Amino acid sequence: MDKNELKRQMDFLIEIDKLKTVLRRAYISDSSRRENSAEHSWHMAMAAMVLAEHSPERVDVNRVVKMVLVHDIVEIDAGDIAIYLRQSDPTVADRERQAAKRIFGLLPPEQGREFLALHGEFEEQKTPEARLARALDRLLPVTLNYVTHGKTWKDLGVTYEQVWEVNHQAMEAFPQLWEYALSLINESVEKGYLPRRAA
Amino acid sequence: MDKNELKRQMDFLIEIDKLKTVLRRAYISDSSRRENSAEHSWHMAMAAMVLAEHSPERVDVNRVVKMVLVHDIVEIDAGDIAIYLRQSDPTVADRERQAAKRIFGLLPPEQGREFLALHGEFEEQKTPEARLARALDRLLPVTLNYVTHGKTWKDLGVTYEQVWEVNHQAMEAFPQLWEYALSLINESVEKGYLPRRAA
Repeated sequence: MDKNELKRQMDFLIEIDKLKTVLRRAYISDSSRRENSAEHSWHMAMAAMVLAEHSPERVDVNRVVKMVLVHDIVEIDAGDIAIYLRQSDPTVADRERQAAKRIFGLLPPEQGREFLALHGEFEEQKTPEARLARALDRLLPVTLNYVTHGKTWKDLGVTYEQVWEVNHQAMEAFPQLWEYALSLINESVEKGYLPRRAA
Repeated sequence: MDKNELKRQMDFLIEIDKLKTVLRRAYISDSSRRENSAEHSWHMAMAAMVLAEHSPERVDVNRVVKMVLVHDIVEIDAGDIAIYLRQSDPTVADRERQAAKRIFGLLPPEQGREFLALHGEFEEQKTPEARLARALDRLLPVTLNYVTHGKTWKDLGVTYEQVWEVNHQAMEAFPQLWEYALSLINESVEKGYLPRRAA
């Protein structure tokens, strides 16, 4: 361990502080303001610890926790893109790859590679850990939308069909989580938080 | 896994969303606003992943990560108390214990006990994991103070001696981290971010 290594690690920790200024489309539960990506990442890590047992496939909880902690760091350069807008922007994935290279490249090489791999694993969605991370990344926004009476759904003008689609896609492999999410989505329609069809 | 168990877990995740509204005395690195305890917890978890190798004692990184993720949740009920004010308020520890019981008590019993134990381990400071967690909990505020030109130190009117004392206490068992922190503290005095004596 040389001094230069610690300096690189601290420079990285100072750089990623910027994730606290990246705003997401979600609102925090008291509706007072939009959520930032750093506090979202904490909430995701807590969700991973609490909900991992609902994965039908065996998962390494510790890797899920680490994966969700790093999964949004690329947004420091690439910004946060709402899931409903993401598919229509083909440049997002490329910008995020560049961001991952730059930001994780601040670390000592071995650590940088480890973080880059965790980020890549999340993006590729080929492991049970990555699939659980993505399911949680959909479940929390549904929950915050329900608690804030559909605030983000209304901002974005999305419908039941769109919400059903993106969430079902990510959660169908997790029947208990999907059942819970669907109950909130259905209740949101009944309560007028989410329209059945575009206005 | 019964349905009621998932409901309890989701109620817990909704309840702890409130940590995003608990403001700390620290500012985020661009000085634009005070830091909240949820994003601080994320930053702590990242610091644990990145810096665990600087512990002279062998630590279980995964346990440090989990410990720092839960360590501030009690502040939802008990509030955040600046380290420089903490020692003068004998009721803090008791309020935090009550908070831990209430909040972790929302979870299914086995999980609640696990989280309560992690929180208690941090408070008791008897394991290498807990000591590393506390050292990081001092190192990040020093770093943010340095980056924001001593903004919190100025708010609180603290001096070099006070900063030296609380940080040395937590970091002396981690010579590399302490050396780094001390270099920032000394530079802060030279640059006028931190006074040698009370004004």
